[in-house]
Amino acid sequence: MLISNVRPWGGDAQDIEIADGAITALHPHDPARATGADDVVPGRGRLALPSFSDVHCHLDSNRLGLPFRPHTGTPGVWGLTMNDRAHWREDGTVAERATHALGLMIARGTTRVRSYAQIDADSGLERFEGVLAAKEAHKDRCEVEIMAFPQAGLLREKGVPELMDQALASGAAVVGGIDPCTLDRDPVKHLDIVFGLAERHQAPVDIHLHEPGHLGVFSVDLILERVRALGMRGKVTLSHAYELGAVDEATTRRLTEEFAELDISMATIAPAQQLHALPLAGLTEAGVRVGLGEDGQRDYWSPYGNADMLDRTWQLAFTNRYRKDELIEHCMAVATWGGATVIDPSVARLASTADRPGLAVGDPADLLLLGGETVASAVMDRGDDRTVLRAGRVVADGLELVG
Amino acid sequence: MLISNVRPWGGDAQDIEIADGAITALHPHDPARATGADDVVPGRGRLALPSFSDVHCHLDSNRLGLPFRPHTGTPGVWGLTMNDRAHWREDGTVAERATHALGLMIARGTTRVRSYAQIDADSGLERFEGVLAAKEAHKDRCEVEIMAFPQAGLLREKGVPELMDQALASGAAVVGGIDPCTLDRDPVKHLDIVFGLAERHQAPVDIHLHEPGHLGVFSVDLILERVRALGMRGKVTLSHAYELGAVDEATTRRLTEEFAELDISMATIAPAQQLHALPLAGLTEAGVRVGLGEDGQRDYWSPYGNADMLDRTWQLAFTNRYRKDELIEHCMAVATWGGATVIDPSVARLASTADRPGLAVGDPADLLLLGGETVASAVMDRGDDRTVLRAGRVVADGLELVG
Repeated sequence: MLISNVRPWGGDAQDIEIADGAITALHPHDPARATGADDVVPGRGRLALPSFSDVHCHLDSNRLGLPFRPHTGTPGVWGLTMNDRAHWREDGTVAERATHALGLMIARGTTRVRSYAQIDADSGLERFEGVLAAKEAHKDRCEVEIMAFPQAGLLREKGVPELMDQALASGAAVVGGIDPCTLDRDPVKHLDIVFGLAERHQAPVDIHLHEPGHLGVFSVDLILERVRALGMRGKVTLSHAYELGAVDEATTRRLTEEFAELDISMATIAPAQQLHALPLAGLTEAGVRVGLGEDGQRDYWSPYGNADMLDRTWQLAFTNRYRKDELIEHCMAVATWGGATVIDPSVARLASTADRPGLAVGDPADLLLLGGETVASAVMDRGDDRTVLRAGRVVADGLELVG
Repeated sequence: MLISNVRPWGGDAQDIEIADGAITALHPHDPARATGADDVVPGRGRLALPSFSDVHCHLDSNRLGLPFRPHTGTPGVWGLTMNDRAHWREDGTVAERATHALGLMIARGTTRVRSYAQIDADSGLERFEGVLAAKEAHKDRCEVEIMAFPQAGLLREKGVPELMDQALASGAAVVGGIDPCTLDRDPVKHLDIVFGLAERHQAPVDIHLHEPGHLGVFSVDLILERVRALGMRGKVTLSHAYELGAVDEATTRRLTEEFAELDISMATIAPAQQLHALPLAGLTEAGVRVGLGEDGQRDYWSPYGNADMLDRTWQLAFTNRYRKDELIEHCMAVATWGGATVIDPSVARLASTADRPGLAVGDPADLLLLGGETVASAVMDRGDDRTVLRAGRVVADGLELVG
């Protein structure tokens, strides 16, 4: 199979040969090559990029495609969790909603997803099973890694660790945790359950951390202790972690170094007003794996989100106030290859802001062909001229699923 | 003329009668009404909103429609000004570029603009004349108010006050100023020139303020002294003013009250990481006129900006972290009617976040018909189904200019 006439990361026009789901050769573009080939995807001079990896989304809560619902609920994690709990059963099944949303995401260029599946006393395994159904429905188009996620804590309500255990035995691949101090208010017990489940199921861990300043650093230090003690190097992700850069420069440097040493990966959603996060380029240049995610999509938590990781890539550049092409391209690298390294640590990591990964011989043929002059201009324009490949097969074209 | 079947601010379906450029009647929608009328704009159940007013754009510097140009230049006002100076003559004339950009803005829903026209020793009146040409080219589609703007200061280079004076005698309607302390480094002399020109030309003033914290407050206090002394109530706008909320709560309250008392209006561009601005809803609820603008559009300063005030309205909601429908609607009110009050203080002001202005009998028929379920969902979706009216005449449809 051949992709004819594309510009990898905006470089010179190439023809890309693909076999068995991987890139097998790259040649300078020659129109004659396409005439001799059986299966040709016309690149039309578009950019070729790795497809997007969304490392933090909630397929089980989104309402994309349903009638718009005015936002309700009081601010804060508990208030919004209870607002979701009061309403999530009102419209369709989780399986229907998650399948629809995942289809929209794939159509826009995402072929790798880490989705939260909420596990709590109210919903039991119902949400998890809905996400599992969506994963199955799109299994040839997208890799979905499901996180069993205790949104309402592990200790506040009965039976949640046992439900987590069941989910992990039934297809959940990642153990989630959340705000060990502020939600469960017993960080040691919370983390002992999380890491206990991880050991029992030999699963990686992803901790959702909203905690501010010194408190967030305290929770992270408890996590780092466990990563060291339990030999979990390379198996832990921190999501959100809005404020780890808020304490002082020495702490910022220490955390960056420890994350690199222990191979802690990070997932950001590019929120507004994130003045005190650890600096993005500083993390990746230290060798820390960083990915981008969309979080909730027009759900009971927030009206934002549109299944479009290209839009979210713009948001990552905007919220970081990046203007230089190299830095805007780096946002694209984080949103594509960076996320792939979070979901699959065996993928070679981003090296620096000058890195243009994912388009060498041997790399998976999970690709996005995107209209645009340069990567930076395409991020600014967020256009619709897209073709999405998963394992060398076209799965979407012009924002519509194919096949 | 009749607009048939639209939902003002998302309310019940109405038919809107228009004569002499203003709304003359509103009726509950009745399909029979359209059959009897001569000139009918089909609303198709869309939202009806006031059209956008962009209160801060730089028509003279944008490169929309030209090949994408990698960002160059060092950060900071002076570095970026010099980067612009080194390059702005490279592509087409200002008149061509400004006319093109203004057309894109109108096609997306903007019918009222306050544009900066840079006046400096390098460009003389060339940029001003380019913006004047764009204003003339679109005079039936959009009201353009031109600000003579001393981007490189009034004191650092020779002859700038005289050029400002010429521009104000030749069609510029507003006197611009910029960072009285940090750019010209002599705030009293800078402001004396600005307010001197304002008095001489009986023109309003718009001061572009990037200065941080206490320094910004100091400059604002110098401005407020002059507004009081010179009887300039209602004639001064502060643009950007990123950090006026950074000092302490008492200062935030005092400034909000003084702005209301002296009828100082504010122009925001919804930047990222604006943690210390005066709070938006606090300002409007105190009666301060606030508008939204797009600033530079893919120019020598920044690659961001796409001529779409609906996109910028989303950005205003996003950067304010608004989730409730009422607050997202308020962003739309600021972007439309709020800006109109900045450009034309005789327009009745926004009363509160619950206000749904601009669609009553007597209001100008400068309207945006926009596909969407509710105002909040339309801001989230930023869709293309738009019809734009200026003074009761359709000037754009489906993102294309008409007539």
